[in-house]
Amino acid sequence: MHTRDLDYRCGDTNLRGYLAFNNDARGKRPGALVFHEGLGLGDFAMERARRLAERGYVALAADMFGERKQAATLQEVSALVGALRDEPATLRARGRAALAALAALPEVDAGRCVAIGYCFGGSVALELARDGAELKAVASFHGVLSTKLPATEGAVKASVLVLTGAEDPLAPPDQVAAFKDEMRAAKVADWQLVSYGNALHGFANPAADGSIMRAALYDAQADRRSWAAMHGLFDEVLA
Amino acid sequence: MHTRDLDYRCGDTNLRGYLAFNNDARGKRPGALVFHEGLGLGDFAMERARRLAERGYVALAADMFGERKQAATLQEVSALVGALRDEPATLRARGRAALAALAALPEVDAGRCVAIGYCFGGSVALELARDGAELKAVASFHGVLSTKLPATEGAVKASVLVLTGAEDPLAPPDQVAAFKDEMRAAKVADWQLVSYGNALHGFANPAADGSIMRAALYDAQADRRSWAAMHGLFDEVLA
Repeated sequence: MHTRDLDYRCGDTNLRGYLAFNNDARGKRPGALVFHEGLGLGDFAMERARRLAERGYVALAADMFGERKQAATLQEVSALVGALRDEPATLRARGRAALAALAALPEVDAGRCVAIGYCFGGSVALELARDGAELKAVASFHGVLSTKLPATEGAVKASVLVLTGAEDPLAPPDQVAAFKDEMRAAKVADWQLVSYGNALHGFANPAADGSIMRAALYDAQADRRSWAAMHGLFDEVLA
Repeated sequence: MHTRDLDYRCGDTNLRGYLAFNNDARGKRPGALVFHEGLGLGDFAMERARRLAERGYVALAADMFGERKQAATLQEVSALVGALRDEPATLRARGRAALAALAALPEVDAGRCVAIGYCFGGSVALELARDGAELKAVASFHGVLSTKLPATEGAVKASVLVLTGAEDPLAPPDQVAAFKDEMRAAKVADWQLVSYGNALHGFANPAADGSIMRAALYDAQADRRSWAAMHGLFDEVLA
């Protein structure tokens, strides 16, 4: 397993991602983006990138905040996430910069890339899909599903998989219903949404318990199931 | 693969199920019930029973109408299904009779049974779960999710998996929302619900196209995915 930082830019912003891949493998491999939570790029997204690398992907844990900034307080989370939510064009551009950096690597089959994200990062993965990015599939884990720029008809090329806790206060039933309506209205060719009963926000992150994120709780069962559902879709679209 | 009819009774009603299992296998195996659609026990449920038998289950495609009645018209479907929906106690008793007949077989590990169902049969599987039947898990494929007897707190022992088409007119968004509320209120320990985008009623049945069932359409992708999701859960709870 080879891991290293990968620096790339979006406009004037320096972004410092984390790359993981099997350097014994030969030939081009599918690429996978991992978008971090509101806390910034840290151990959790890196660990998921390594797991994807173990499955044969060239995985890039992207940096959405610049200079690999990490939030230490809820106020910082709100400021960093809020700034990007308020400017979805910037958010999408940063996500696309990560995709471009990944796709440009000699080890990556640029036509076979996927993206996943957690919480805020789930939104980023969905925003890339809405933006028509060249991704085979995206998976959002306990992500916020609302957007300032709903998908337009025919725009989404990726297969979309939403993995959400039925008790996630950041993705309540009304938001889930609105997301489904968005997918319908945009005539998205392939989308699925899984609701995990009893699961709260942050169900996939063992560090959720006791973190500064409110209403977050790790759920080992939902973590395992959602990871398997993701691989099920990815194996299908990359076959 | 051994297949044969299996007769059993519920009160005065003679029920004629269809049994499938691998008769080269030794020892007790998990049991699986398959509940048919509103058309009655026919080729489709039998084929699913054989598939489950190939995976190591002793599978019983149950007969919910008696004497293996099959409906030829929508009026007959309505009459047969309506009579049972109006009397949920009878519906549950017939489902339990199938479970008892399966569990009594010497090849079956009675403590390791699961149930699946399609359309009307999905409702039957859910009714057994609501009734607290000794099932490790139930999976409903494009089933109606509403009930006259909502689950009471703590009653449901089975893990519950609902696989539903986002465009199924028999399980519209309000019904899906009400089902989730029922699961929450009953504090069901393990439940999941998957919405397949673009999928209509009957998505798992290749015979749905052009059948007398309204608004039904086969969807090979949703069929494959839902079958995999079912095995994912069953493998987990039977491990």
